[in-house]
Amino acid sequence: MQDSYRRLLEQIREGRLSVEQALQKLRALPYEDLGYAKVDHRRLLQKGFPEVIYAPGKTVAQIKEIARRLYDRAVPVLVTRAEPPVYEALREEFSGAEYHPEARAVVIRTAEKAAPKGCVGVVTAGTADLPVAEEAALTAELMGCRVFRLYDVGVAGLHRLFDRLDLLFQARALVVVAGMEGALPSVVGGLVACPVIAVPTSVGYGAHFNGLAPLLAMLSSCAPGVAVVNIDNGFGAGYMAALINLSGEGGGAD
Amino acid sequence: MQDSYRRLLEQIREGRLSVEQALQKLRALPYEDLGYAKVDHRRLLQKGFPEVIYAPGKTVAQIKEIARRLYDRAVPVLVTRAEPPVYEALREEFSGAEYHPEARAVVIRTAEKAAPKGCVGVVTAGTADLPVAEEAALTAELMGCRVFRLYDVGVAGLHRLFDRLDLLFQARALVVVAGMEGALPSVVGGLVACPVIAVPTSVGYGAHFNGLAPLLAMLSSCAPGVAVVNIDNGFGAGYMAALINLSGEGGGAD
Amino acid sequence: MQDSYRRLLEQIREGRLSVEQALQKLRALPYEDLGYAKVDHRRLLQKGFPEVIYAPGKTVAQIKEIARRLYDRAVPVLVTRAEPPVYEALREEFSGAEYHPEARAVVIRTAEKAAPKGCVGVVTAGTADLPVAEEAALTAELMGCRVFRLYDVGVAGLHRLFDRLDLLFQARALVVVAGMEGALPSVVGGLVACPVIAVPTSVGYGAHFNGLAPLLAMLSSCAPGVAVVNIDNGFGAGYMAALINLSGEGGGAD
Amino acid sequence: MQDSYRRLLEQIREGRLSVEQALQKLRALPYEDLGYAKVDHRRLLQKGFPEVIYAPGKTVAQIKEIARRLYDRAVPVLVTRAEPPVYEALREEFSGAEYHPEARAVVIRTAEKAAPKGCVGVVTAGTADLPVAEEAALTAELMGCRVFRLYDVGVAGLHRLFDRLDLLFQARALVVVAGMEGALPSVVGGLVACPVIAVPTSVGYGAHFNGLAPLLAMLSSCAPGVAVVNIDNGFGAGYMAALINLSGEGGGAD
Amino acid sequence: MQDSYRRLLEQIREGRLSVEQALQKLRALPYEDLGYAKVDHRRLLQKGFPEVIYAPGKTVAQIKEIARRLYDRAVPVLVTRAEPPVYEALREEFSGAEYHPEARAVVIRTAEKAAPKGCVGVVTAGTADLPVAEEAALTAELMGCRVFRLYDVGVAGLHRLFDRLDLLFQARALVVVAGMEGALPSVVGGLVACPVIAVPTSVGYGAHFNGLAPLLAMLSSCAPGVAVVNIDNGFGAGYMAALINLSGEGGGAD
Amino acid sequence: MQDSYRRLLEQIREGRLSVEQALQKLRALPYEDLGYAKVDHRRLLQKGFPEVIYAPGKTVAQIKEIARRLYDRAVPVLVTRAEPPVYEALREEFSGAEYHPEARAVVIRTAEKAAPKGCVGVVTAGTADLPVAEEAALTAELMGCRVFRLYDVGVAGLHRLFDRLDLLFQARALVVVAGMEGALPSVVGGLVACPVIAVPTSVGYGAHFNGLAPLLAMLSSCAPGVAVVNIDNGFGAGYMAALINLSGEGGGAD
Amino acid sequence: MQDSYRRLLEQIREGRLSVEQALQKLRALPYEDLGYAKVDHRRLLQKGFPEVIYAPGKTVAQIKEIARRLYDRAVPVLVTRAEPPVYEALREEFSGAEYHPEARAVVIRTAEKAAPKGCVGVVTAGTADLPVAEEAALTAELMGCRVFRLYDVGVAGLHRLFDRLDLLFQARALVVVAGMEGALPSVVGGLVACPVIAVPTSVGYGAHFNGLAPLLAMLSSCAPGVAVVNIDNGFGAGYMAALINLSGEGGGAD
Amino acid sequence: MQDSYRRLLEQIREGRLSVEQALQKLRALPYEDLGYAKVDHRRLLQKGFPEVIYAPGKTVAQIKEIARRLYDRAVPVLVTRAEPPVYEALREEFSGAEYHPEARAVVIRTAEKAAPKGCVGVVTAGTADLPVAEEAALTAELMGCRVFRLYDVGVAGLHRLFDRLDLLFQARALVVVAGMEGALPSVVGGLVACPVIAVPTSVGYGAHFNGLAPLLAMLSSCAPGVAVVNIDNGFGAGYMAALINLSGEGGGAD
Repeated sequence: MQDSYRRLLEQIREGRLSVEQALQKLRALPYEDLGYAKVDHRRLLQKGFPEVIYAPGKTVAQIKEIARRLYDRAVPVLVTRAEPPVYEALREEFSGAEYHPEARAVVIRTAEKAAPKGCVGVVTAGTADLPVAEEAALTAELMGCRVFRLYDVGVAGLHRLFDRLDLLFQARALVVVAGMEGALPSVVGGLVACPVIAVPTSVGYGAHFNGLAPLLAMLSSCAPGVAVVNIDNGFGAGYMAALINLSGEGGGAD
Repeated sequence: MQDSYRRLLEQIREGRLSVEQALQKLRALPYEDLGYAKVDHRRLLQKGFPEVIYAPGKTVAQIKEIARRLYDRAVPVLVTRAEPPVYEALREEFSGAEYHPEARAVVIRTAEKAAPKGCVGVVTAGTADLPVAEEAALTAELMGCRVFRLYDVGVAGLHRLFDRLDLLFQARALVVVAGMEGALPSVVGGLVACPVIAVPTSVGYGAHFNGLAPLLAMLSSCAPGVAVVNIDNGFGAGYMAALINLSGEGGGAD
Repeated sequence: MQDSYRRLLEQIREGRLSVEQALQKLRALPYEDLGYAKVDHRRLLQKGFPEVIYAPGKTVAQIKEIARRLYDRAVPVLVTRAEPPVYEALREEFSGAEYHPEARAVVIRTAEKAAPKGCVGVVTAGTADLPVAEEAALTAELMGCRVFRLYDVGVAGLHRLFDRLDLLFQARALVVVAGMEGALPSVVGGLVACPVIAVPTSVGYGAHFNGLAPLLAMLSSCAPGVAVVNIDNGFGAGYMAALINLSGEGGGAD
Repeated sequence: MQDSYRRLLEQIREGRLSVEQALQKLRALPYEDLGYAKVDHRRLLQKGFPEVIYAPGKTVAQIKEIARRLYDRAVPVLVTRAEPPVYEALREEFSGAEYHPEARAVVIRTAEKAAPKGCVGVVTAGTADLPVAEEAALTAELMGCRVFRLYDVGVAGLHRLFDRLDLLFQARALVVVAGMEGALPSVVGGLVACPVIAVPTSVGYGAHFNGLAPLLAMLSSCAPGVAVVNIDNGFGAGYMAALINLSGEGGGAD
Repeated sequence: MQDSYRRLLEQIREGRLSVEQALQKLRALPYEDLGYAKVDHRRLLQKGFPEVIYAPGKTVAQIKEIARRLYDRAVPVLVTRAEPPVYEALREEFSGAEYHPEARAVVIRTAEKAAPKGCVGVVTAGTADLPVAEEAALTAELMGCRVFRLYDVGVAGLHRLFDRLDLLFQARALVVVAGMEGALPSVVGGLVACPVIAVPTSVGYGAHFNGLAPLLAMLSSCAPGVAVVNIDNGFGAGYMAALINLSGEGGGAD
Repeated sequence: MQDSYRRLLEQIREGRLSVEQALQKLRALPYEDLGYAKVDHRRLLQKGFPEVIYAPGKTVAQIKEIARRLYDRAVPVLVTRAEPPVYEALREEFSGAEYHPEARAVVIRTAEKAAPKGCVGVVTAGTADLPVAEEAALTAELMGCRVFRLYDVGVAGLHRLFDRLDLLFQARALVVVAGMEGALPSVVGGLVACPVIAVPTSVGYGAHFNGLAPLLAMLSSCAPGVAVVNIDNGFGAGYMAALINLSGEGGGAD
Repeated sequence: MQDSYRRLLEQIREGRLSVEQALQKLRALPYEDLGYAKVDHRRLLQKGFPEVIYAPGKTVAQIKEIARRLYDRAVPVLVTRAEPPVYEALREEFSGAEYHPEARAVVIRTAEKAAPKGCVGVVTAGTADLPVAEEAALTAELMGCRVFRLYDVGVAGLHRLFDRLDLLFQARALVVVAGMEGALPSVVGGLVACPVIAVPTSVGYGAHFNGLAPLLAMLSSCAPGVAVVNIDNGFGAGYMAALINLSGEGGGAD
Repeated sequence: MQDSYRRLLEQIREGRLSVEQALQKLRALPYEDLGYAKVDHRRLLQKGFPEVIYAPGKTVAQIKEIARRLYDRAVPVLVTRAEPPVYEALREEFSGAEYHPEARAVVIRTAEKAAPKGCVGVVTAGTADLPVAEEAALTAELMGCRVFRLYDVGVAGLHRLFDRLDLLFQARALVVVAGMEGALPSVVGGLVACPVIAVPTSVGYGAHFNGLAPLLAMLSSCAPGVAVVNIDNGFGAGYMAALINLSGEGGGAD
């Protein structure tokens, strides 16, 4: 199905199809209306990845039904911020469902399995930033990327980071996760040549204001080649890094 | 000179050089100390692009001297947020200096000129976002990217955007610039498959709080594949988009 | 009773009654003093709708008593942000009390039932915005409006919205509910000719700051014909939309 | 031209035209591309009013050109936040251009003149709120509404307001403008039966934070039937009130 | 004991005692050191009222001991923000302890009872502001003031306030308590001749930001003769109003 | 004229006049409508002091006309935040106009001159707080109070304050003005028995945020008997202190 | 082991070792990689004190393992913000573990015990600031400092502070802890000659905004010789004061 | 004169003088009252340094007079944030006045000149942070410290910092100045053993919010041994560092 969409996009690029014609074709592509949600199969076609299910604020029954619709079309499912009961419920129906407790995520994979491509690195300043980092790493892995992790290398002890420069230099895109003062993305951005996706976390207290301190710091970074996602948004960072990494591979998302 | 650095990095990747050895070699690379500033030739090596000169807070004499040091090593120079007097002063010494008034930037190009690679798109919501967009476009062009511009296609009249979907689909990376409510990056992010770098601008008034409104909106975007840079940071967005675009080309910045 | 009030207002407009005389007559209209609250029957006369009971911070006994006073004067009662125990208590006394769990509201209708008038549309960006939207829809329905719902049509997948433009064009007033970046009211405002009441919701995390992000975005909207109510204020939005819709009908609220 | 658009919308409503067909027709409607701006004639069709020209950040030449394009299609032009030099330049070309110094606005009217419809009231708390109020009043007048003004009736001397209740009761929609503590919309909202559009102004100092104080107050209003626009946004308030007023007239904007 | 302090202050005023001498005498006055707290009997002398015990963050045992020290010197004790268990514990030792559930306060009175003086009024905008208002009223009563209460007379229904102007005019000092938009103190301040102490409350949601909205509004009040205390600070407002009221009486606090 | 108002209020208090009757009488009292402003002579009656003219945002001509209307009724005029040109213009018409440059205020006194009553103290932490303090002192003097000044006695050198405790103890009401950390009102509030009106000033930089730091500090004061007015609001503080002082005198404002 | 590090630093200072050589030696120093954390023995060498374990966000098992690694190298362990279950778990393995409930901290001391040096004072404004103060005092004690405590001497009753000036004058460094308006560090800073470390606490409500009020106040302090740490950061303040105190001793940390 | 004060303090420490007696003696020490300011000679005694004159908000005449009073007592004078006209005026009277344009400061030295003691380092992240750094360096030098400067070594190019570790290790106290993301103090704090005084600067734009970003970052620093002063407060940082440095010397400030 992805092929047909790709062909369509190519025809637009080649001028063999007008935008008007393309839009009409796109409208023909189904999405399913569950009443409380509209499962968007078009996104899959467009981005090379299914719509992630953000669990908070949805009932277990709703999550289950959305997952089923996605799974029926043979796309991998990722449920983020999922507590164990969500996993229990999903496992009843999807025997292959996996729970990743550090990432607080459920994954339901499809049969097909390609070799991971390129290289995405996920780096954290502290131990407490781990859940956000794992969500990012898992997302990138599910999108087909080779991923390495380098945790607890914050700026108060930079020799731990410098010991692994070789690893950092291998990445085509880096996710750098930090709470507290959020300084690590600037330091990493000053060392590497690839794009850095900075993720502030809510780890801290007082004048940290639940992530405001590292968010503002990262946006004010003096290092070029750094862009920022929302506080604790591991999924968004992993997704962005995967897009960049795969674009370098000349495949997948493009 | 860039070659020698590349070789060095490759040797690290191939394990033929330890990090320790590499760091010693790197230390040997010169940077020049002007007292009030340290001109960092290493950055050029590392990122494939010279250190940009951010004009505010620097005297014309300081800007001139830093530019000379960079130019002497045959690297292109970019001076951002530069008022006309800065340009006047630079033109005295660098006959080839160009002034880009919309981007408020001075450029001093080197002789060598490569064909632009890949495709970066720069999109704005309104007419007033133009200076930030031009800074981004100019930066990406200087880094060797092919760039297209699509201006004044904000969300209050989306048919103007939909008329040019064909153009959007060509980009390997998009810079989307918006003030007011900052909604355009989310809309674009929902349409395209490439990474989107969102730039909030200070265009607005009242509850806009000089760019806070679109900044928070872009960070809270419901579309994946969107990362954010600082308010009005056209340079940072163009730099990031160029890195992504060139990484897809398998060259330049990597 | 409403008739007598209407006559009074008409006499003022027609100059047959001075303001002084009118004020004296108005003072004669009763309100009931429960000590901790003053049940304002005058509001009913004035707005065509009873004073809504906002449940948080009131005891079940207080809510029950205020409801009884209103009900005794044959006006419909709406209790917002009501948990099930509030409903249980009210049902004991008012057998016709209905609980609307999605809207978290209790309704006690009066016997008389008029055909719904005009058309109010309630639109949401996501599934999680549903409780706020339902509160708005229920309010408008109780005030005598015909209401349609269009949910989960956020800006990251605009084709879902464009598929139902026919529905949007039927509304005389629209309530557009959105959390995250709050972009939907701007998009809708750019498409329709009727007034849009924008409702930011607290759905989001991190830089969303409990609704601040969409609130600022909606206030900075580039689309004219958009006004904003408080975060999560479904009741206020439904009330405002109903006033506008009924004013178009030449009846009810006017 | 407006007629043809109306017919089109009616055909959609009546089911005689599919959305797809309508969209194709709409695409055929021209907009003009000035490079730095896209003059959107479609908005005129859609809203019954031309795109307003917000002067700040645009050159006089740009404003002039956009005005000419609009004027050529026989639509009234409104330039907001316009300093006298903008007016001087426009008067050169449009002999009928009027300058409204209190509203800081230029108006270029078309020949046709309809009798004003309905009734919009514009009320201010203080004398310093006058420029914002005049912008609102002028906007509503240009859109074809009958408008009355009631200025300097703030809450610290409510007898000035109560003396004119007769006037307030005539409005089909009210714009209430207030700086300082922003209490007036709540008081008015408690007295009238029509929708109230509240406009916070930047008039104040210290803890007023350039309009934040009345903005938050108005959003937290205890009176239903009140919606809020951005700080100092007189145009937006007047536009919204006119939409509501005309919808009640069964004409114009609908 | 209060007498001796009064005499001392009078001697200073009359120049019969130098400040140096007075300070030496004051130092001789005892305070008791409990280790975790220093019970300040000097405050009693100075202000005509004991140090209030703010319960949160103190153990029941600590509260009990501080109360005992105060009681032993025959001064009335006021424990604010006290949950029922605090009362239970205090009643064990002080049989005359009273619990005021609406004010969330425990009072232990001394034997002597003077006739209440002057007149303090406590006014609220809504029913939910009642706990803060009761804390203010109780404080003023304990300090020897005659107090009247006027509740639920907010700005959305001002006729309820105007019906009781006679009551308002009797006060020598008014405490006006309001959440939501916090407009009531401005309205009252515009009607009366006595000082108004405004108390913002945390009653509200969304853009109310836990009391920020009414706090900023009250500080920006357009009515002179209004001063503000902290959000929910009923004690502080009652204390201030009592000081003003008693100063008018020529007694008590002076 | 004041007498007739007083008699009216007394009749209400004594029950010899109903509120209805009183309101009718009050309505009969004139205010003058200048179009852009409504000069409120009723306030004079009510508060014992004329409406102050806040100069910013008013033209010199407007200020002059409002002043004339007030002066014609033989009430003293106070123009605050007045630059020298305002004074020049007023002196042309009112030969007795005085300019107080430190207070940035113009005063036009009436012939009658009563002996100053009671005692108001105005205290500042630093030299830069002087303009705000002078505005407060002047306001209280004009309202008939005896006033003393005690400047530059901030908390970093408390011995300067303790040297003048004798002066502090004489006040019936104190205005305490402080920028920076705003600690002085708490210290003074812990020393004196009279009410303290705290005024934060915009004197400071950085994390001071134009007066936010001392504003929040003063609202969080640990000393009872302290209430706060807006940042830099010397007039409001002086007015409040005068009301309190005169109420103690049994005259003037009551 | 500390000796060898000291020798290394001394050799750098004496020019007998180049930075390059030193860095190579430093890299040779071990740190242990636990996967989720990197136990940094180098910090111990560098600062004279082990890495503190901040308990929140770590599992009991993780805390236990990190503690063991530190303990095995004979360094004292400090676990901050530790609830009783953490202590229970640690006591199982470390029989000498002590729980300090007021400081919410666990300490595991090493055998060696030196006489406390110099003098650090810890001062609080109120009783509720005690947990933060105890954390500071415990930290300084563990680092080898003599510590005195002076609690509940806030600015509303300064005589309690002045009674103990003799104690204050003994300190080589002072930690001053205050919630509410945070005025105490300014007062103390104006009295003493030694450096003052100011710690704002989250003790307060309303406009205190969880410590923002005293934080801004302390940063705006008018007294020189005052520096600030994060809200509630007792550990950081105690650490800083200990560094200063010991540097004066010519030992320990230097 | 300093000797006599020292003796007094020593007598207190040794218990040979009671606090009461000491306070009486202290009161006897003169300060001069200029009306608008109180020149506090006591501070000199207490801190070993005169009261600095912060120029903004003071007239040139006031500055001159305060300087004269200080100079007459043979203490060095430091005028901060001083524009050239201030210097011109001071040079007329004090021939030895020096202007330091980078630090925006005037210095009037006394005859006596001691050898600089200890070692204070002043480090900046960027070139634009230089004025703040120079103010800090000058302050520490005037207080008798040996000072070194290390500028433009920000985190985006850390090799510039690591090249000068030998210099950093020499300091007894470090002032680290940074705008943008404010990461440098954390990095330096992780490398050195001495106390670090962090100074955020207003250098940055957009989400930097005039220094808020680095301020919050520095307060949230993950490195212990770091305390923070106000944004751009070079004087405060230099003063604090000098106090620490000299306390280690066993002289000067103690």
